[in-house]
Amino acid sequence: MLADKDQNSTPLTELGEFDLIKALTERIQLRDPSTRKGVGDDAAVLHFEDADTLVSTDLLVEGVHFNLAYTPLEHLGYKAVVVNLSDIYAMNAQASQILVSLGVSNRFTLEAIEALYAGIRMAGRHYNIDVVGGDTTSSASGLLIGVTAVGYAKREEVVYRKGTKPMDLLVVSGDLGAAYLGLQILERENEVFKVNPHTQPDLSPYAYLLERQLKPEARQDIPPRLAKLGVKPTAMIDISDGLSSEILHLCDQSDVGARLYEDKIPLDPQAIRAAEELNLNPITAALNGGEDYELLFTLKAQDYDKIKDHPNLSVIGHIAEKDKGAYLISRDGGAIPLQAQGWDALKSGQGKKAGKAE
Amino acid sequence: MLADKDQNSTPLTELGEFDLIKALTERIQLRDPSTRKGVGDDAAVLHFEDADTLVSTDLLVEGVHFNLAYTPLEHLGYKAVVVNLSDIYAMNAQASQILVSLGVSNRFTLEAIEALYAGIRMAGRHYNIDVVGGDTTSSASGLLIGVTAVGYAKREEVVYRKGTKPMDLLVVSGDLGAAYLGLQILERENEVFKVNPHTQPDLSPYAYLLERQLKPEARQDIPPRLAKLGVKPTAMIDISDGLSSEILHLCDQSDVGARLYEDKIPLDPQAIRAAEELNLNPITAALNGGEDYELLFTLKAQDYDKIKDHPNLSVIGHIAEKDKGAYLISRDGGAIPLQAQGWDALKSGQGKKAGKAE
Repeated sequence: MLADKDQNSTPLTELGEFDLIKALTERIQLRDPSTRKGVGDDAAVLHFEDADTLVSTDLLVEGVHFNLAYTPLEHLGYKAVVVNLSDIYAMNAQASQILVSLGVSNRFTLEAIEALYAGIRMAGRHYNIDVVGGDTTSSASGLLIGVTAVGYAKREEVVYRKGTKPMDLLVVSGDLGAAYLGLQILERENEVFKVNPHTQPDLSPYAYLLERQLKPEARQDIPPRLAKLGVKPTAMIDISDGLSSEILHLCDQSDVGARLYEDKIPLDPQAIRAAEELNLNPITAALNGGEDYELLFTLKAQDYDKIKDHPNLSVIGHIAEKDKGAYLISRDGGAIPLQAQGWDALKSGQGKKAGKAE
Repeated sequence: MLADKDQNSTPLTELGEFDLIKALTERIQLRDPSTRKGVGDDAAVLHFEDADTLVSTDLLVEGVHFNLAYTPLEHLGYKAVVVNLSDIYAMNAQASQILVSLGVSNRFTLEAIEALYAGIRMAGRHYNIDVVGGDTTSSASGLLIGVTAVGYAKREEVVYRKGTKPMDLLVVSGDLGAAYLGLQILERENEVFKVNPHTQPDLSPYAYLLERQLKPEARQDIPPRLAKLGVKPTAMIDISDGLSSEILHLCDQSDVGARLYEDKIPLDPQAIRAAEELNLNPITAALNGGEDYELLFTLKAQDYDKIKDHPNLSVIGHIAEKDKGAYLISRDGGAIPLQAQGWDALKSGQGKKAGKAE
């Protein structure tokens, strides 16, 4: 995939840094009216009339956050953008621009980097955001992708992790655990492939899980949907490290406790089946797997009627007084303390949970 | 330095990602009134009243942009910030915030990363900017530093690479070539050290050159100084890749040519002496060395009187019609085409010119 012997492949050593940047950026189109100047100067110039500016950044490292053995480069580029946009949407804001830094080694061809950039541009089109800058450099070993996302919101619209109060409802969009289970399937098939490269696995029963892992989407739709329903979250965060960890972040920053009900956690039927096959508990995948990029937020209890019938939103618990702690209430009524067992690159060792981006 | 056997050293494996982020960010102070929310949420929240937002990002990779054999970690942290701020000042703007992503391997101790962060905080204090976000992750091999700088300027104040016209004056701040010569001295001493680790070199004759290489400063002072002198540049860029390359960028984006006069290029006496000792041409160091982080800009000819006596500014040439090309006029009157021989990580091979950041 990387060092393909295709006649049309161009080694990066034949190009200079400026030529590579030119090849990657010449197809960029600007869409957002807040972009005054994109790629091509010392800095991008943006203008947000009467709004707050939001900025978030992430660094993705090969062998830690992704494994190129089973990650197509277009998907990787797309995902690198999506995980950053998710942070902007989690502030109840709209994303408008990204800057992309790449570190590439000579084992990559121009065509490989163009495939990565095609994924980045595809995400730009899908989410209607502009690629306005970045940096391209060499890397001694693996592929590095740094993405900075910029967005905007009116001051009174911005929602923080802090702000929820006891009795608020705990709500999540979509379903959870599928991305982690997709990763387990990919790693299992990768092991099989190493033993027998001629295997052609039938991955169709896992299509949804693989898409959640390889080409996740960020919940751009949630902030405007909530506005249309007439509700404003009291606190919000995106689910990158798993539901447990994110609930604990909200509790920590808002100085509260929480009750999460096991039987309310939304799971896709494919996730339940795959978990059974892999001998895993799908609830554990939802709590600790991460990478779902759904939004977790809290609402005033009186807003319940406004969202209760919404097919994309699930009420999964409520906020409690701080001294009540943060617990999962199991189906049999037991109370289990929530723990941040989310992904931890520094503790868990490299590559152990490759595929995870924060 | 990295894996020191000090009793007080803390392996990163003892800390989780959240603990490391907490240890690094708890001493951060916010200074800029445009920062509404810094570290600790999904995104930083900023507000620039009535101004444009400027954003620039860079990725620094160990073995490509820096060599830890002779780069103290505090200096590295400081420099990583400075090279990004320089991009904001090059837009005639003020920098206000940075976001810092780190990729660290287990060979680093907490104390090593804290030293790096101490340099980052020191730059924050010196330039009066806030550290408002970032990402910390593990890296399979070397140290990675991604910095995103944010700044602001009124729309009419922003200066682009495009905008200069024939007959405009070509002006540079400070002096050139010293950072590159400092790097040559460091690499020479590093080779000596490898042969005989007990050598204690006397580096005092090179103090200015080493400071320019290891702890450069960005020209935050130039935009307000020019405003005070009543002049606005017609185009501007910072000198990261060498004077030749930056003049060609201005020519390319403004669709013009240029004349640069060899005898006008500002050189420090220490740079001239070191170049002689190293058997290098100091003009070549100025043209192609890079990393000076001075500002190169153009002014209307009628502004000459306003800046001619300024000790920090040198008029080094002028802009010409595009069909006249871009040439260095040597002391003997010869015309040599300017060439972008700036640093190129992809072509030159890794580490060949380690120390360079764009």
